[in-house]
Parts: sequence; C-alpha cells; structure tokens
Amino acid sequence: MSSSDIYAAQGFGGSLGLGQRWALLLVDFTVGFVDPALFGGVDIDAAAYHARTLLAFARDAGLPVAHTRVGYADDGSDASLFAARNQRSHLLTDSSPGSRFVPALVPVAGELVIRKTVPSAFFGTGLAPWLALRDVNTLLVGGCTTSGCVRASVVDAISHNLRPVVVTDCVGDRAQAPHQANLFDMRQMYADLMSCGEVVSAFAVMRAGARDA
Amino acid sequence: MSSSDIYAAQGFGGSLGLGQRWALLLVDFTVGFVDPALFGGVDIDAAAYHARTLLAFARDAGLPVAHTRVGYADDGSDASLFAARNQRSHLLTDSSPGSRFVPALVPVAGELVIRKTVPSAFFGTGLAPWLALRDVNTLLVGGCTTSGCVRASVVDAISHNLRPVVVTDCVGDRAQAPHQANLFDMRQMYADLMSCGEVVSAFAVMRAGARDA
Amino acid sequence: MSSSDIYAAQGFGGSLGLGQRWALLLVDFTVGFVDPALFGGVDIDAAAYHARTLLAFARDAGLPVAHTRVGYADDGSDASLFAARNQRSHLLTDSSPGSRFVPALVPVAGELVIRKTVPSAFFGTGLAPWLALRDVNTLLVGGCTTSGCVRASVVDAISHNLRPVVVTDCVGDRAQAPHQANLFDMRQMYADLMSCGEVVSAFAVMRAGARDA
Amino acid sequence: MSSSDIYAAQGFGGSLGLGQRWALLLVDFTVGFVDPALFGGVDIDAAAYHARTLLAFARDAGLPVAHTRVGYADDGSDASLFAARNQRSHLLTDSSPGSRFVPALVPVAGELVIRKTVPSAFFGTGLAPWLALRDVNTLLVGGCTTSGCVRASVVDAISHNLRPVVVTDCVGDRAQAPHQANLFDMRQMYADLMSCGEVVSAFAVMRAGARDA
Repeated sequence: MSSSDIYAAQGFGGSLGLGQRWALLLVDFTVGFVDPALFGGVDIDAAAYHARTLLAFARDAGLPVAHTRVGYADDGSDASLFAARNQRSHLLTDSSPGSRFVPALVPVAGELVIRKTVPSAFFGTGLAPWLALRDVNTLLVGGCTTSGCVRASVVDAISHNLRPVVVTDCVGDRAQAPHQANLFDMRQMYADLMSCGEVVSAFAVMRAGARDA
Repeated sequence: MSSSDIYAAQGFGGSLGLGQRWALLLVDFTVGFVDPALFGGVDIDAAAYHARTLLAFARDAGLPVAHTRVGYADDGSDASLFAARNQRSHLLTDSSPGSRFVPALVPVAGELVIRKTVPSAFFGTGLAPWLALRDVNTLLVGGCTTSGCVRASVVDAISHNLRPVVVTDCVGDRAQAPHQANLFDMRQMYADLMSCGEVVSAFAVMRAGARDA
Repeated sequence: MSSSDIYAAQGFGGSLGLGQRWALLLVDFTVGFVDPALFGGVDIDAAAYHARTLLAFARDAGLPVAHTRVGYADDGSDASLFAARNQRSHLLTDSSPGSRFVPALVPVAGELVIRKTVPSAFFGTGLAPWLALRDVNTLLVGGCTTSGCVRASVVDAISHNLRPVVVTDCVGDRAQAPHQANLFDMRQMYADLMSCGEVVSAFAVMRAGARDA
Repeated sequence: MSSSDIYAAQGFGGSLGLGQRWALLLVDFTVGFVDPALFGGVDIDAAAYHARTLLAFARDAGLPVAHTRVGYADDGSDASLFAARNQRSHLLTDSSPGSRFVPALVPVAGELVIRKTVPSAFFGTGLAPWLALRDVNTLLVGGCTTSGCVRASVVDAISHNLRPVVVTDCVGDRAQAPHQANLFDMRQMYADLMSCGEVVSAFAVMRAGARDA
C-alpha cells in the first residue's frame, strides 16, 4: 500500500474548501533564501518569479498582504537556538544583504512586514491578531522554504483555525526531496494545494458568485 | 549534489549538543495512533515498545515527564479545522477508546497530561511555562506521528529555545517515507537525533561529569 | 485634575463601538469564586445572579458561549507560580467543590469549557482560535474577579483584536475598591462597559438593522 | 473589613521569594510615556530617573536586559484595536519622537529591544523564549504605566512561571489612583514589590551567599 493509500484509508487528504475572506502571506522571499549561494536552491528562484503574479493578484483583489523576513539583530541580542543551529546564520543579520526582500517582491505601504527569528510566521509575532482584525479565514501561502518556514507557518495557520492554501508554484526549497515530502505532508494533514492560476480562477468564481447572490 | 550535501554546504545539520536539564515529552502514544486500524502504521507499535524503556529511564532519572493525547469534546464544542480535515476524527473524541493512552505508557501521578486538539504539544497549552518552571532546556521527544505531532512539537520546542532531541527508535509514523523525510528535516534544521540507548548513555556520562566536577 | 480628566486629555476612554459578531465569555463562575468563604466577596453573588440573564440571552441569540473554570491537577502535576502565590489554592483542585461551576451557570452541550490555571482565559488555551473559527469580533465578558481573571482576559481579548465588552452587572470582585479601579482601567484603555440590559438592547437594535438592510 | 484583610483571609498577598537568575525588563520608557504632554503624568519622570540606577545595577551585575517601546507602523499597516482606542496613538508611530527611548535609558549593544503594539511585553513577541534561553526565573520590572503595560507584562510574566518583581520607585503612571490600585492588585496576586535599593541589596546578599556556599 502506498503512503497515499494509507493516508486515504485513515481519512486524511480531504479538503475543507476555501472560505470567503482571503489574505496572502509571503514567507521569507529575501535575498538570502533566493540566492543558492546563501540559503536558496533548486526552485526558489522560480517560486519568487511566480509569486510576482500572486502578489499582483492579491493587491488587485484588495486582499490583506503580509510579508515575513528572517532578520537577526546585528549585535546578537536576539540570538536563538534556531539561528545557532545554522553555522551561517550571521548572513541573515538585519544589516546583511541576505535579510532584504528580493526587489520584485518588496512590500508596499499598508502591507504588514514581520521580522522573524524562528520558522513560523505566527510564533511570537502579531500575525494572528492582524488577520483576525481583517476577518480573514483563508490564508494563501507562498514563499520559502517549503520544508522550513512555509511548513511551520502552515501548521500554525490551521492551528489558528485559518484555512491554509499552499500555492504550489509559489513555494520553493533548496532541494527537491524535502520540497515534495513537505507538500505531501501539508496536503494530507493541513492545507489545500493550488497553483497560482487556480487561486486566481477560484477568486473570480467566488466574486462572481457573490455578485449573483 | 545530494540533499544532505546542499544542506551541509549551507551550514545546516550541525548540533548544539545537549543542555544540562532534561525533560521527556511523549506525544500522542494513544490507542488511536498506535492501532493501524485507526491512525497507526508501520513502526508506531515498535516506537511505543521502545518508549517504555525511555519512560522508565526518565522516571528513574527524576526527569519531568509530560504526555499529550489528542482528545476532542464529545459534544463537538471544540471542533477545529485541523480535526475537520480528517474524516475519521470522531474516533478521537474524549470518550472514544482511541483517545486513551496505551496501557504500557499511562502517565503516573506528578506527570503532566496535556489534552490537545492541534498538532503541536505547545500550541494553546501550558507546556512551555511548565517546562520553564522546571528549568528545562533540553527536551527528549518520543511519540507519533513523526511527520505530524512530533514534528510540530519539535519546531515549537526550538522556537521556545529548548534543545529538542528526537529519540529515533521511540518515534513512529503510519508510513515509512514521511517518517524518514521528517527525521531528515528535523535533523537538518531543528533537533538532534539519538536512539534511546544513546540518550541513556549520554545521561550517565553527564551525571558522572557532574559528580566529578 | 481628576484621573478621568487626565485620561480624557490624553485621548483615552473613547469607544470603538461594537462589531457585528458577538460571543459570550463567562470567567470562573465557580463555587470557589462565588462563595465568600473561599475566594468570593462583596458582589460576586449578584454578578452570578445577573449572569443568568446574560447567559440566557446569549443562548437565545445563538451566540458562541465559552466558560472558564480554575482547576489544578489533584496530583500537583501542573503546579504553577500563580497558584503557589495563594496559600489556599489547594481549594481549587479539579476534584474540589470549589472548582465546579455554580449550578445556575453550568455549561450545556456545544459550549466551550476551558480549564485554566492562570488568570487569562486566553493564555495557554485554545480560546482565540475557537473564536476565530466562529468569526467573532466582539466579546461580551462576565465573571469574576473583575480585578483578576476578568481584567487579564480583557487585556488579552483586545490584544487579539477582539472588541471586549465588560458587562458591568455581571462581573464582581471580593472587594469594592479593586472592582471599581479595574472597571476604570478597562474603560479607559481596553473595553466598553455596558450593563446586561444595555447589551440585550444593543443586540436587538443590531438585529433589527440587519433585517432592514 | 479592609480590602487587604479580605485578601489576607483568602490566602493572597504572600511572597514566593526571589529565584537565583534575574533579568531586567524596562517597559516603555519612551519620550511619549514620560512627557506629560503626551502620555506621561505624575510620577513617570521620577520613575525614569530612578530607573537609571536600576539599569546601571543590572548592567554591572551582568543581568540580561530587555527594553520595550510602543511603535506603530508609519503607514498604518499594523493598526490594532488597542491603538485605535486612543485618539492620539498617531503620536506613537515609529518615526514619531514619542516612540523613542528617553536618552538616559537607551539600550546598549546586547540588550533586547522589543517593539510592541499591545500592552504586554510578552504578547506576540519573542520575550519569553529569550528569557528561557538565558535561564531566567525572576524578572525585575520597571517602566510605565503601572496600570497599563507594566501590569499587563507582570500578569504574563507569572503566567509564564517567571517570578515578577515590580520595582516600586521605577514604575510610574499618569495618575496616582491607578498607580496605587494596580500596585495593590499586583502585590496581592502576581508580584513582589521592592524598591530599587531593596533589589540591589537583595542581589548583594544572594551573591555573597553563593560565594560562601
């Protein structure tokens, strides 16, 4: 029996469908995670490329947009075990080029910017209350890495009772195997998976439905 | 280049070593997750078997011990999206046999019991303050599933600045591929991996060192 | 210049008005906090009496209802500093009569019951995600004590971006001065204050408006 | 019976004593909260004056030091209900003079700086894990206002199982009555109260004891 068969037999892998109030979370699309010489890899470049379309869609649709970036204090004052476990985390201090957003995905006024030092965009941040104030119940997630901060944020999103949607062509990882394994886990237990095109179409359908109602 | 090579080149996969003050967290060793007819699978039985040794060690050593179980209110009052995503989550209501601890791993007086409704043992629970009160800085983790609640708890553990140790022969999953993939992720980014025997030996060495100092 | 004048001059004491989606939180209406021989006092009895009307209203109106009770593990396994600071906290263990809900305010099926060990109903509990799933943006709060767990819960409510409404005749304290002082603080900084009658009227107006719209 | 008598009869008002590992938290000693023309008042100036001694002591003693400041995004992107409840919260945007630390209490390299948008220094921030990493179990708290962000931070501190010590001459408020009422509440339920001089003496005694042991 394949893994998928086991999960299906145990009731996993279904979908709750989407809610009516969406927001977009872009996780760590910074120079440090897009550049393969730093912490990037196989398909993060492509994910960042496609995320431009996703971000443009969200802005056009008037969705709340939040961006995270990893940034550690230059003076080491917020040193953490998670940072310490990587021998090159000094490349992500606040003043390092690696902690800057990639130019094509820089936040604009009114979008939430979360500086974070741990994997999840929710842990020790104001993201959940920010989404609550905006009545969001469905969270589109793009970013990197799939197996790291995207996964951690998706687990927290559903724990906060938000419906996470992993936008498959807008998330990437430094290696293919972890990318695929984590898409599998998220699909089975936590999130819907949709391409950017499917997201855009679903939104148009929802809006048309709202107009007809 | 293999995934491991990529991670190594980027500074991942190191170890911080262990701290001096340990606790044990056993995640969801309940009937529902050990029984393959419910939510169990390939090696969870074996993990529960080995966890008896780990638990006995922790009790002998006087470590704080916490146990989690998934339990949903019988009247549906705490229904959540995470539960709703599984079509058989009704098998884990508080009065269901599936939500009971397996007999060999039942908590004893003085051990913390956390009823939870989401993946992480930390999310929406008192676990982090409980560990803080006991000066814990190193968290041994056994339980199931590796790719689900163990992984989520380990990510939160390091985010709380605890050193997580995944006890490899005491964690299990319903399928082999997710088990292995998540051990890889945790090893690279979040946790040390040690067998139960290695944990016991390391503790003896630490205690001997403390006596000699 | 009176305290109120100072606060007014500095921009405090305004109201945001109510949102459209309400829930009710009853904090610690248990035997232990209503009985003056345990942890009760001057007006908690009266608050519990009026809370029967508030609870009946919420049930009729179909609002989500959550109840908290303080309960400590009988075996001391979840001992905390907050409990240890009171020399009689053993009167609130799970099997003590003091930790039971007062008969007139016992939860019914479908209402969330939160066992808690710290002041705030939100801290280390699933309350915020539970309210998020129900799209709540306005939280009516009754219970006791005004200066203790009600205040702590109200501060967390607005921090979660919920609009707290302290229902003044449904909150009580063991002494008059802390009751009044904390109503003042909450009014200035965190919450609207309304009587139960005002809450019921405001709801009727809102519903009528919704029908006309 | 006075309020204090009632609290004493019910087991409140005791002290747990201090732990062995201290840190200092200075809450919102910014221009906006010290200046009476903004959000300051009666004794905040004096509190800030005495806090210089407290801060110098903590630095000499090598204690971990954390500072918070209220700062709202200039573009309104992190607007919250708590900020919206005050009609002059625009005076605390990140680029406003009001959000800057007072010159005598500016953080130095290695001290944690927390920008916050809600009352508690812990809510939605990394403070608890930061203290955990430093093995802190006792938190000295100075700052302002006593009835606002100090109180909220103290409630969260004990909920995290840290022993809070409110340094009485280093906390202040915009009016006398809330200051006194909240010192009373904290003393009864959550914290020890000590003057800066008492803190310094207690530390010397503790260090001497450690040398003799």
